[in-house]
Amino acid sequence: IAAADAAAIDRLMEPLHAADIADFLEQIEPHERRRLLEIWQGGLDGEILSEIEDSVREEILGYLSPQDLTDAVRELESDDVVDLVEYLDDDQQEAVLDVLEPLDRVAVEKALAYPEESAGRLMQVETVRAPEHWTVGETIDHLRAHSDELPEQFYHVILVDPRMKPVGNVTLGRLMSSRREVRLADIREDLFVTIPATQDEEEVAYAFNQYHLITAPVVDEDGRLVGVITIDDAMIVLAEENAEDLLLLAGVGESTVSDRVVATTRRRFPWLAVNLVTAILASLVISLFEEVIAGLVALAVLMPIVASMGGNAGTQSLTVAVRALATKDLTGSNVLRVIRREVLVGMINGVIFAVVMGVIGLAWFGEPLLGVVIAAAMVINLVIAGLAGTVIPVALDRMGVDPALASGAFVTTVTDVVGFFAFLGLAALVLL
Amino acid sequence: IAAADAAAIDRLMEPLHAADIADFLEQIEPHERRRLLEIWQGGLDGEILSEIEDSVREEILGYLSPQDLTDAVRELESDDVVDLVEYLDDDQQEAVLDVLEPLDRVAVEKALAYPEESAGRLMQVETVRAPEHWTVGETIDHLRAHSDELPEQFYHVILVDPRMKPVGNVTLGRLMSSRREVRLADIREDLFVTIPATQDEEEVAYAFNQYHLITAPVVDEDGRLVGVITIDDAMIVLAEENAEDLLLLAGVGESTVSDRVVATTRRRFPWLAVNLVTAILASLVISLFEEVIAGLVALAVLMPIVASMGGNAGTQSLTVAVRALATKDLTGSNVLRVIRREVLVGMINGVIFAVVMGVIGLAWFGEPLLGVVIAAAMVINLVIAGLAGTVIPVALDRMGVDPALASGAFVTTVTDVVGFFAFLGLAALVLL
Repeated sequence: IAAADAAAIDRLMEPLHAADIADFLEQIEPHERRRLLEIWQGGLDGEILSEIEDSVREEILGYLSPQDLTDAVRELESDDVVDLVEYLDDDQQEAVLDVLEPLDRVAVEKALAYPEESAGRLMQVETVRAPEHWTVGETIDHLRAHSDELPEQFYHVILVDPRMKPVGNVTLGRLMSSRREVRLADIREDLFVTIPATQDEEEVAYAFNQYHLITAPVVDEDGRLVGVITIDDAMIVLAEENAEDLLLLAGVGESTVSDRVVATTRRRFPWLAVNLVTAILASLVISLFEEVIAGLVALAVLMPIVASMGGNAGTQSLTVAVRALATKDLTGSNVLRVIRREVLVGMINGVIFAVVMGVIGLAWFGEPLLGVVIAAAMVINLVIAGLAGTVIPVALDRMGVDPALASGAFVTTVTDVVGFFAFLGLAALVLL
Repeated sequence: IAAADAAAIDRLMEPLHAADIADFLEQIEPHERRRLLEIWQGGLDGEILSEIEDSVREEILGYLSPQDLTDAVRELESDDVVDLVEYLDDDQQEAVLDVLEPLDRVAVEKALAYPEESAGRLMQVETVRAPEHWTVGETIDHLRAHSDELPEQFYHVILVDPRMKPVGNVTLGRLMSSRREVRLADIREDLFVTIPATQDEEEVAYAFNQYHLITAPVVDEDGRLVGVITIDDAMIVLAEENAEDLLLLAGVGESTVSDRVVATTRRRFPWLAVNLVTAILASLVISLFEEVIAGLVALAVLMPIVASMGGNAGTQSLTVAVRALATKDLTGSNVLRVIRREVLVGMINGVIFAVVMGVIGLAWFGEPLLGVVIAAAMVINLVIAGLAGTVIPVALDRMGVDPALASGAFVTTVTDVVGFFAFLGLAALVLL
């Protein structure tokens, strides 16, 4: 890069897949990125651009020449263009849309009219469809005649009725291996799922994974065909949603390793602020027992153990519950059973660790009652952890709040408060 | 179910997709499940069975009649049979294999010879292939002539050389829309990725997601075609791997909501045991300062705040790092930059919360030096949290240990120990 050798860069980049080039661009420093793209004029095509993650892409679009942008965008299909422009500010969006052919522009604008993260944003408007009364021969002849208008990738022919409502799917495999006179309606797939354009993309990904769909037609509110979603887009959504749950559970929002320092700091701040409040709440509980601690400092030494074990057990229950809610494995029909199980698990593990910790407490401080107190507090806190770890995410989910986002703070607050209160309270009763 | 009405169950189940029936079976109680399956003789087909999760499936296979099992297994493709039997014990596996046609049995046994969680286990051995010199017309005629041998779902024709080495992919869409005399070699896809049969399934899922593959041929060590993997299987692996990371990070192993109490307790126990050890380690640090705490009980009240903030900040850094390692966004080329960023973020948030907490500490206990101590400890612990939260998972990854599994315990140990030590140590220096 330092030598500004465009030909050398071309040689290096040429054998790489667009997704790998995108990864490479994400991993280098912003100034290196800019320098590289200045030298590598015209090398950045639409495919690479659509593979780059949002924050880096926005940065690049900020200094890409209009000509390069035009070249890059022209070759993309409508869903990729939507993906490219949907999070841009209005000026940048306008600039990209201006370079599109009028027909493509209409398609992209239609998709942008659907809500964010909906099936309408995810779909590609280019569909391959045929009237249901057609035969295999008619369909193949039609496809051959219009081969230059076909999308790059398609795996089904969608059967539509005269009002453009999709009524079935024929896989290309069946189509190709059937005799020319067979009617499409007779070889359609058993399973046929249509997706409303306004459906949340998370639901779309769930449907693809649950029913092993490869493509699914998207319909408007009147049930008419408006586009098609393919599994590779659904897979990307699934991966993103899973990552989001993981990051939300850890309180990091939508972070990636290529974010800058300021953006990262700002994203992590809220969760740390929430944690500070809950930690202070726990400290207030401790301060109720200042005299007890002053009377027996061993309590201060041991109390974090009870809270920490509760926090961990609560996080375990919580994570299983959040995951099960996301995959729809935790529903009204089994929620009571799951809660009962979590409480039981908390109790069993609580008793085991109570015994262990009771013995350690006794051995450490030579005070039998201290062992009893920490053991009892441990059982109480692990049972509460199992209960809170399941009830809180389920309750949040029913209230329409994403359980991955908020459960963690609630659950650890509960286990901290209960842990300190049970341990120090019992100590006050028994030891003083 | 209580009325033992098989016809009524049939009516209820009939409109449901196999995956939904499987979910339903997972969610009811084990004794209900058994009762239902006894009444609903023969209703359980292979597709449902292959959708059910491992622990429940094993339970069902334990009491399914040989006849039902035979019927269920016969209709499955080789990859689904492999999926069904791979985690059964030898007797059960033998029973299932015995009912297969000899040819299918060989296919399944071949797949089972590949390592667990490898591409060989994931692939389907039924491939649709053609010599590269064939024309579109020859290929379509061949497919029509052998239409009863074709797999249910296929999306590409794999081009092979005379030694059965795959040399390219032709999408059915291109095949169908090209004229009969066009040669296959001229319409093959630009991107062609083959997958070694021994490759880890996680790598396979990564490749599908990275390159937007729909199907990919699987090759043996000599580069010869042995099977094909389709994206829907890769998507399932991706979802499973993501779930695994999430659950490992929370220390729950491979849990699901339909596990029983004993199994769940056993799975959660190890992580809680590790946590107990680390908590005791932290308590040992506290016990070094017993006299300091006896002198100023406010320290006992405030000390969990420093540890808790460090733990949270560390988990944030850790989660981002684990995620980035899994998606290969964190590599040798940007690891130093990411570490620098995490430390900086820790420092900035540390200073902000140090000021906040310093003021709170002062206001609460009216002791200016206490505010200074907690502020300084906060900065130190949040910087260490950012450092440990990135360095530890990266180091574990380089050592070949799954960072999702072990990082959490290490990072919180570091932040607890550093948090307590910094806070109480500074207090001992400054306040006494």
